[in-house]
Amino acid sequence: MLRTHNCGELRITDVNKEVILCGWIRRIRDMGSIIWIDLRDRYGITQLTIFKDKASEDLLNIVNSLAREYVIKAKGKVIERESKNPKLATGDIEIQVEEILILNKSEIPPFLIENETNGSEELRLKYRFLDLRRPIMQNYLLMRHRLARYIREYLDNAGFVEIETPMLIRSTPEGARDFLVPSRLHPGKFYALPQSPQLFKQILMIAGFDKYYQLVRCFRDEDLRADRQPEFTQLDCEMSFVEQEDILNTFEGLFKYLFKKELNIDFTNFNILKYTEAIEKYGSDKPDLRYSLEIVNITNIVKGKGFNIFDDADVILGICVPQGNVLTRKHIDELTQFVRRPQIGCGGLAYIRVNSDGSYKSSFDKYYTQEDLNKIAINCNAQKNDIILILSGPKKKTYFAMGELRKHVAEQLNLINKNIFCPVWVIDFPMFEWDEETRRYYAKHHPFTSPKQEDIELLESNPEKVRANAYDLVINGIEIGGGSIRIHDIKLQKLVFKCLGFTEKEINEKFGFLLKAFEYGVPPHGGIAFGFDRICSLFAGVESIRDVIAFPKNQNARDLMIDAPSQVDSDQLNELNIAIKQNF
Amino acid sequence: MLRTHNCGELRITDVNKEVILCGWIRRIRDMGSIIWIDLRDRYGITQLTIFKDKASEDLLNIVNSLAREYVIKAKGKVIERESKNPKLATGDIEIQVEEILILNKSEIPPFLIENETNGSEELRLKYRFLDLRRPIMQNYLLMRHRLARYIREYLDNAGFVEIETPMLIRSTPEGARDFLVPSRLHPGKFYALPQSPQLFKQILMIAGFDKYYQLVRCFRDEDLRADRQPEFTQLDCEMSFVEQEDILNTFEGLFKYLFKKELNIDFTNFNILKYTEAIEKYGSDKPDLRYSLEIVNITNIVKGKGFNIFDDADVILGICVPQGNVLTRKHIDELTQFVRRPQIGCGGLAYIRVNSDGSYKSSFDKYYTQEDLNKIAINCNAQKNDIILILSGPKKKTYFAMGELRKHVAEQLNLINKNIFCPVWVIDFPMFEWDEETRRYYAKHHPFTSPKQEDIELLESNPEKVRANAYDLVINGIEIGGGSIRIHDIKLQKLVFKCLGFTEKEINEKFGFLLKAFEYGVPPHGGIAFGFDRICSLFAGVESIRDVIAFPKNQNARDLMIDAPSQVDSDQLNELNIAIKQNF
Repeated sequence: MLRTHNCGELRITDVNKEVILCGWIRRIRDMGSIIWIDLRDRYGITQLTIFKDKASEDLLNIVNSLAREYVIKAKGKVIERESKNPKLATGDIEIQVEEILILNKSEIPPFLIENETNGSEELRLKYRFLDLRRPIMQNYLLMRHRLARYIREYLDNAGFVEIETPMLIRSTPEGARDFLVPSRLHPGKFYALPQSPQLFKQILMIAGFDKYYQLVRCFRDEDLRADRQPEFTQLDCEMSFVEQEDILNTFEGLFKYLFKKELNIDFTNFNILKYTEAIEKYGSDKPDLRYSLEIVNITNIVKGKGFNIFDDADVILGICVPQGNVLTRKHIDELTQFVRRPQIGCGGLAYIRVNSDGSYKSSFDKYYTQEDLNKIAINCNAQKNDIILILSGPKKKTYFAMGELRKHVAEQLNLINKNIFCPVWVIDFPMFEWDEETRRYYAKHHPFTSPKQEDIELLESNPEKVRANAYDLVINGIEIGGGSIRIHDIKLQKLVFKCLGFTEKEINEKFGFLLKAFEYGVPPHGGIAFGFDRICSLFAGVESIRDVIAFPKNQNARDLMIDAPSQVDSDQLNELNIAIKQNF
Repeated sequence: MLRTHNCGELRITDVNKEVILCGWIRRIRDMGSIIWIDLRDRYGITQLTIFKDKASEDLLNIVNSLAREYVIKAKGKVIERESKNPKLATGDIEIQVEEILILNKSEIPPFLIENETNGSEELRLKYRFLDLRRPIMQNYLLMRHRLARYIREYLDNAGFVEIETPMLIRSTPEGARDFLVPSRLHPGKFYALPQSPQLFKQILMIAGFDKYYQLVRCFRDEDLRADRQPEFTQLDCEMSFVEQEDILNTFEGLFKYLFKKELNIDFTNFNILKYTEAIEKYGSDKPDLRYSLEIVNITNIVKGKGFNIFDDADVILGICVPQGNVLTRKHIDELTQFVRRPQIGCGGLAYIRVNSDGSYKSSFDKYYTQEDLNKIAINCNAQKNDIILILSGPKKKTYFAMGELRKHVAEQLNLINKNIFCPVWVIDFPMFEWDEETRRYYAKHHPFTSPKQEDIELLESNPEKVRANAYDLVINGIEIGGGSIRIHDIKLQKLVFKCLGFTEKEINEKFGFLLKAFEYGVPPHGGIAFGFDRICSLFAGVESIRDVIAFPKNQNARDLMIDAPSQVDSDQLNELNIAIKQNF
């Protein structure tokens, strides 16, 4: 080793030791008779001190040539600091430097290598090797490493086996697009990169592995939305001979373990919400329970007063915003604009203010008496100085809009406690989702999800009524993971494929090998998969998963540091028997 | 859970417990008054017993309908066996069955689901879900899981961080071919799948992560030789501020840990051989040290007796085979054929037999006296009843041939102790390798490997003399891993690129981002990478890595179970802006 210690470990008990440290220069301060250098590595920062009256001319010459981010090796004696720095683990000591060797020089970095940096994200991604020197970024990746370790600890102890599944698989497009990989040895044929190891983990259950997990890279060729990456890491799990309850218990246990080990937070049992409850209370199957603002269905008590907008609506929904009467006309206008945006699509926003004297002022006073308003207020549990926000319209759309409004208001009014975690299981998802555009049903979870036993008879007659043995884990409004109890009966599996509109030929092409396996003794099984990047960003308290991925792509699916994707040699394409189409 | 216990855990102390087991039927034996069913899961086998006189008609009807590989749930009482089976962990007990529920039926499997199976490898790969039910295959994958766990335990404790590097990267073909992935969002451009995370791990050192590792999937689009896979798993490691000795110590420690934890074998220090020694003693840079058969250079004592073949040769090499005089004329002919094969390319094989009376009989008696032969025998340390095998010719080729002959003789004569492990570090590899076909030098390790300080001056004048700070770990003749101390000086890196014949343009295209990073303070660093599949097959004692990979490709890079690669929809290709060339 070129060093005796790292930059984070020396303490007052090490005083008088002769040490050698290596690291990067964070900053140099020339105080006249003394020069201080902060030396940084992954483990911390140690202060190097050069007393000019004691230093050799050689040493001073070298010190004068140093600059930020130079890599040096410094030899010296540990001494006690005159003025200690309690913020630094090594803050009680400094190194009285005797010798410095420059291991490598550095250009001036294009942005500050500090937790608070002045670099744009584009610049930081391009110079990721410098961005990752920032202690805060190193901490994110160290936390990611710990979380992976804790996950494995917990699952290993619970008897799970980590098994690696292949990356070069068969294209079965359903849902997102596959990334394809041309085969050179089999001209005209392609591998696909896995969107998830779904089929392989089911195969592993059929093979009898009983409890499987894998921290595994997955790929989706999507038009990138907000915070998606074309490649992402999934914690993928499957168990045999289990029921839904067993999966929930096992993975609730995992998250309790993670919260305890990483953040020292204890949890009692997680909440469980049925899908319909989640929609009716929070307007979302990913409810954020860090704040209340529950939706109240006031349709029945509001209708029939001659106000057309309400009378013509399928549903009328309210949320009571505590102390919301502080909202000005301007705020209300902003909220109205918000619900009128095309993504949300409401006609407008109604409200009832509860004044400090207990009287009401609504946006529809013309049709409603104070007594009518009082009845609504009681239903919504509104107190003095609160405001009730009201949306009306078609059922599905209005619940969705109310869910969005709920989130927006919570953000605007700062109702979200950023320091807590509110996990909730959402269960009993519908089996299918109707797509208006393609005029067919899609699997809400995926085509291998089992319907609830008591709903099987509705599969052909009334598919939208069928509930699935499917569940999501939602924390702070983010879907952290989801899974289901799978179908293990070949006839039922074929029926579900049929409900999804697959022809016999498509079924065999896409899932033939799974159905083959289904003929040889499939155990009842179920599983779940979690977004590991998302878990990391949640625990790190950062908005973007890009901050917890060492080398992420940008929003345009490009790696700015290595400049990928890129053009390749025509020889390479020839060998693969493919050509680029020139008509784009 | 559908069960109270698994099939591997019940013991004599559980007698009288009411239990429910789930699993697959391994076999059914109807003994007249009793029916025995072996029920199998990942954890073991438990015997189910049906006493016909005590069983209900329903139960007997169900039992009569059962067959091999049916999945059942059985309820009953644990009782002590009359005749115990000491080979089985559960062999003291059996279950007196009260109820059986068929969870799933099974077709008759196409081969025996036993450790000794009758299925061909093709068939087993196609029905991998059945193949993996064989306990021996489950054990291989369970061992693989444990080895991964031990590796992480050791490296985590040593302060290494596991960091995930991207799979969709930039194509930098050098060495093997890249697999390419067309980009839909960037028409005409491609990602490549990584052959290794080499550049990323160096970037991580530049970013200051100090100690990195990753168990990571890598990809090489090669014409498949013997036991290669297009995707394979690598243990990839890198450290900063280290010298070669530190890497060797750290990873020797890792392997001692693995041998101890998994196989309970203790090791003292591993042997170290210089590359030149390895070639001169064993004719290979991957020497198998489980047997001796060391090569002796007898050029000087053999030449000059008028035998043209020897007199014209650059080198004359011998190996003494202990008790080798048992080799018949037919054996010798077979060995002669072996060394004459085009891959080896020798003209012939000479030999000296040491008879039981101490006299000699050689294949070149005409030119050599008994005294001459005695001199050779002393040099080769040959005893009575030994045989000395001799090859002669150009230096490099003859050492290689002797290495191959050495292995072949060891196998033929059963000189290999299959129960021991002989790890050895091979160090001081040459920096470059001349390729006759393309008339250029290639990096023996890779272009980022540092030359030995004292050899740098030879880089331009005498490249083949330059030794690198490169090392391999070889166990039982298999290269388990290799690495190097990297170049951390940008000028030296550019010089090495130049020696490899890269133009400035090529350097920038292929390695531009690395050279950019080199401008901002690179620490001295080095690393190593191990073939994880190879480690697993070594520990499992199997010949093929396919046995320790859950879903391997066959020798033709095809996945026989899922039938990949396959044709894809033309829509998919259109979206990717590529077309298949029709001229293949």
